[in-house]
Amino acid sequence: MAIQGKFTSSTLQDAVESISSLPGVGSRSALRLALHLLKQPRENILHFAESVSRLATDVRYCSVCHMISDTDICPICADTRRLQFQICVVESVRDVMSIEATGQYHGVYHVLGGIISPIAGVGPSDLTIKELVARVAEKNPSDTEVILALSGDVEGETTCFYIYRQLERLGCRITTLARGLGFGDDLEYADSLTLGRSIAGRQEFKP
Amino acid sequence: MAIQGKFTSSTLQDAVESISSLPGVGSRSALRLALHLLKQPRENILHFAESVSRLATDVRYCSVCHMISDTDICPICADTRRLQFQICVVESVRDVMSIEATGQYHGVYHVLGGIISPIAGVGPSDLTIKELVARVAEKNPSDTEVILALSGDVEGETTCFYIYRQLERLGCRITTLARGLGFGDDLEYADSLTLGRSIAGRQEFKP
Repeated sequence: MAIQGKFTSSTLQDAVESISSLPGVGSRSALRLALHLLKQPRENILHFAESVSRLATDVRYCSVCHMISDTDICPICADTRRLQFQICVVESVRDVMSIEATGQYHGVYHVLGGIISPIAGVGPSDLTIKELVARVAEKNPSDTEVILALSGDVEGETTCFYIYRQLERLGCRITTLARGLGFGDDLEYADSLTLGRSIAGRQEFKP
Repeated sequence: MAIQGKFTSSTLQDAVESISSLPGVGSRSALRLALHLLKQPRENILHFAESVSRLATDVRYCSVCHMISDTDICPICADTRRLQFQICVVESVRDVMSIEATGQYHGVYHVLGGIISPIAGVGPSDLTIKELVARVAEKNPSDTEVILALSGDVEGETTCFYIYRQLERLGCRITTLARGLGFGDDLEYADSLTLGRSIAGRQEFKP
């Protein structure tokens, strides 16, 4: 962009370059954001920078479920009201937040930290699968349910299958998320794969 | 948003709140950006934070034209090839960058730092108008051209008129940006005010 060469301040230029490294933020937006920050009181800018730098220094991960946390054990694992024998396996921190936002789940989580993807060079050993198996083995596996809440794409299915193979000998219950029509979806516009899964996974009608 | 109450880490929550204070960044985007930063190497996060905090600590403004600068005199004012007797008056730092990007202007600038707006509570004394008048008076005013490059809205017109009144007794030349049809604009779709200005400001045809 023409604007890049027109900086009269390398400080501003550095800030714009840093901000435009964020995904979905172009150099024009980055300039707008940097100039916005520049107009703020000094302490607001420093607070902004401080709260970001603390992402590098203060963030920890729960030693049980690998969720982001301020403490060694995250608030979800530490909550005695949550069902410790129901472990929901998710790809990322964000998925935990999405499921928590539903208010429908009362068990605990296990964050894999990614998904098996040969293309992206992510293998099983890059994820917390070994820790999951150890965690289930430590409990009474026959009383434990592992819910595989991964994406419905090829990588998700592969990861589900790999984890299933690791867990089946322990004898725990292994479930997966219901797939089917979305809430309020119109039958007419559903793709045939989704509709097929919806029929195969049909449930008792309980009015 | 439901997601707000679901943070298991106050560090992440603080970062998300800071990022979502930026204009045009909602809480979902802020979460996405914070999680993206979190995945970066530690030194990248710290570099990001550092480059933002330097906006609070290292940014200076040119003592002549009030443009953002690393030094007391900005590179534009310090450039001896630029016409020091042609002063383009703009509202903000960003306008200087936009005009510089055209490559069509070879004079210097004067950044007002805002525009007169009774609604926003910005009066002439909040801007660098006094400094502009002093700057013109110090030069040989009869050789000096002041180009008023402000927005075409009511605030812009008011500010132009105020500055004109301050400068006219000095005897400098005062010009304003050409208003008219944009490059490539279709006559049929132009609003009548713009078209009217285009006719009134018509120029010799020089093929």
